[in-house]
Amino acid sequence: MQKSNVTRRTFMGGIATALGVASLNPFELAAQGRGQRGAGRGGAAADPNAPKRDPVAEYDKAAKLANNENPYGPSETVLKAMNDVWKYSNRYGYPDPGIRQIIAEHHGVKPENVLISAGSGEILKVVDTTYLPAHKYFVGPDPTYDSMYRYVTESKGMALKIPLRKDYTTDIEGMIRATKIHARDVGLVYLCNPNNPTGNIVPKNEIKKLLDNVPEEIPVFIDEAYHHFVDNPNYEPSIKYVLEGRRVIIARTFSKIAALAGMRLGFAIAPPDMIAEMNPQMIGSISSLVKYGGVAALKDTATEQKVKMINKQLRDRTTAELTAYGYEVIPSDANFFMVNMKTDIAPLGAKFQEKGVLVGRKFPPMDNFMRVSVGSDEEMKRFTAAFKEIMPAGKPSTTAAGGK
Amino acid sequence: MQKSNVTRRTFMGGIATALGVASLNPFELAAQGRGQRGAGRGGAAADPNAPKRDPVAEYDKAAKLANNENPYGPSETVLKAMNDVWKYSNRYGYPDPGIRQIIAEHHGVKPENVLISAGSGEILKVVDTTYLPAHKYFVGPDPTYDSMYRYVTESKGMALKIPLRKDYTTDIEGMIRATKIHARDVGLVYLCNPNNPTGNIVPKNEIKKLLDNVPEEIPVFIDEAYHHFVDNPNYEPSIKYVLEGRRVIIARTFSKIAALAGMRLGFAIAPPDMIAEMNPQMIGSISSLVKYGGVAALKDTATEQKVKMINKQLRDRTTAELTAYGYEVIPSDANFFMVNMKTDIAPLGAKFQEKGVLVGRKFPPMDNFMRVSVGSDEEMKRFTAAFKEIMPAGKPSTTAAGGK
Repeated sequence: MQKSNVTRRTFMGGIATALGVASLNPFELAAQGRGQRGAGRGGAAADPNAPKRDPVAEYDKAAKLANNENPYGPSETVLKAMNDVWKYSNRYGYPDPGIRQIIAEHHGVKPENVLISAGSGEILKVVDTTYLPAHKYFVGPDPTYDSMYRYVTESKGMALKIPLRKDYTTDIEGMIRATKIHARDVGLVYLCNPNNPTGNIVPKNEIKKLLDNVPEEIPVFIDEAYHHFVDNPNYEPSIKYVLEGRRVIIARTFSKIAALAGMRLGFAIAPPDMIAEMNPQMIGSISSLVKYGGVAALKDTATEQKVKMINKQLRDRTTAELTAYGYEVIPSDANFFMVNMKTDIAPLGAKFQEKGVLVGRKFPPMDNFMRVSVGSDEEMKRFTAAFKEIMPAGKPSTTAAGGK
Repeated sequence: MQKSNVTRRTFMGGIATALGVASLNPFELAAQGRGQRGAGRGGAAADPNAPKRDPVAEYDKAAKLANNENPYGPSETVLKAMNDVWKYSNRYGYPDPGIRQIIAEHHGVKPENVLISAGSGEILKVVDTTYLPAHKYFVGPDPTYDSMYRYVTESKGMALKIPLRKDYTTDIEGMIRATKIHARDVGLVYLCNPNNPTGNIVPKNEIKKLLDNVPEEIPVFIDEAYHHFVDNPNYEPSIKYVLEGRRVIIARTFSKIAALAGMRLGFAIAPPDMIAEMNPQMIGSISSLVKYGGVAALKDTATEQKVKMINKQLRDRTTAELTAYGYEVIPSDANFFMVNMKTDIAPLGAKFQEKGVLVGRKFPPMDNFMRVSVGSDEEMKRFTAAFKEIMPAGKPSTTAAGGK
């Protein structure tokens, strides 16, 4: 059988839909990547006498905790919305499902505050192109989402990297200070909230402090890719500052909570004059399928809540186990966390991979910290088991046994 | 029943595949857009007492001849390849189907000659960004694909538009002359072959003449979006000039012959140093589905041949009918043609739309010419019938009846 569970799942959704059956609960189904023991491409793994490596089958079977992806895949209603518009896969001029308008309504802003993009990566690139001409300064935390620094380098901007505080939180005072000192040359201030790779938030009072203290003409770009996972009274989204007319750009994505990373859809929310400044740089090459999928995802708040809830449960369970095993974990509000491996992580990725677990890359200068995405229940069990096989028990920071 | 023919088709493909049944011949199935008399969104059209307009249902039912799309949709094997990778729709790190390598092999070049993109639109934009800094000159035919002129304007380049010859062909001598006169300021020379909106080719000897006569350091960008429809001994693709090491960039797309316009996949072929110059400007936001679909499309040469053949048959039949009816048609080698309506076409689009036929926009300065895409057999019959209802018979240029 070449058909994977996932293909069958889409297929069954189609039948259920056609028959008017209530949509399947995605949580009753195996998470993606699980149970897919098919032959993969070429079927080489099927012959026991030819144990050739099959990287595709290995990937499909692995616990995928390297890229902060949503392990459950798009919800049934989102998959149905996309499957229903294959008839537009050959079209340019197909009916607009109104994704820009619906994003605007959903976030309490006007359509002219919204710029839709092929993933939030396009927003990062276009913000860089628009606000960071060569030799302008970029102020951001270090480490943070490294794509942004790559774009800055490519556009010959100058990065002022502000190290995290000792507790791994974003150093807002440090960012304010650097911005003020170089005010004439700063083109852009960047924040990721929650921050990637640390997973912690920038509290709402510190966001306000930053915006109140940097010169008002300098754009502040706040990447809220992980917004939907946060459950913390000290956090609030920053869209309200856009509505106040401040020069603030918010980036959001359908890659995380809506599980559409491979389909590429994101957006910016900003004042209309900034949207107009950025718009000429947009390519706007967004697939017809994901425009419809995005509309369905915004309406499927039930799945959003379930994903948020189960992510928190699995994150808290896993990090508690690591802490009890004697490893420090940075408190996270996202769908990933960082654990202090107490040694350079360079050789560890391969060790986890041997056990079928894909973990995050290194984020210098935090060379001893491993970023782990929150996968499905089964993936997190495999991760914890692999961790205990690879890593010696440490001194537990709470009570409990273990320690060598 | 809310399900459209097309959804059912995908669905049946899935069943056929699962059962190991030979893939369906797309030409035995209705072309997309035909027979879709479903309720559309909201189902308003289902109630005969509420004859509200439903633009989505109107679009789905229309003969879609406005955007040079492929009316048949992606082939069964391409649809299957995309449907099989829904499991990667939530992933960034999924296995690479090798689209860049396969494009390279398919075209006899090396992977370092290939830049893949979200539709060829991204290539046009990135070529503009890379080779047309503000105030540089852009030399191109007029009219040609107007997106290119839009990008030039946005980047504050100066467009030197070289009018077509009296027979509507690209004026290569004029382009050479303009390029030589302004050689110091020209950043880019652009050609579309076959040209859009006229549909005619630039003969191979004229391409060679252009490349031999403009200064060799000036990049020449040749947009071959409609390459696959050409059946003309005077035409040849220009990839060979890339292999000669000339500063030539070729753009190709999966939107036309492979019917993947809505899915966004294209590529450039150029010398490795030019690929390296353009690469930092790429967003690279390509959907996981279409990377797999593109690989399948390149392998499905049988469908490619069928689409090419049926396009030529329907184009020739339709243009012969228009000529017999007394209207001049520009000889075309593409999946569209231009007909001289002998009057400004501004009011005609709405008249065709009333009859359920969508035709091309105006391409100044050719204000009397209407661009018509080659749709399915049934769409072309509807177009010809609408044409004869809207337009008076003219003096036939061959023999035959007609005339008023």
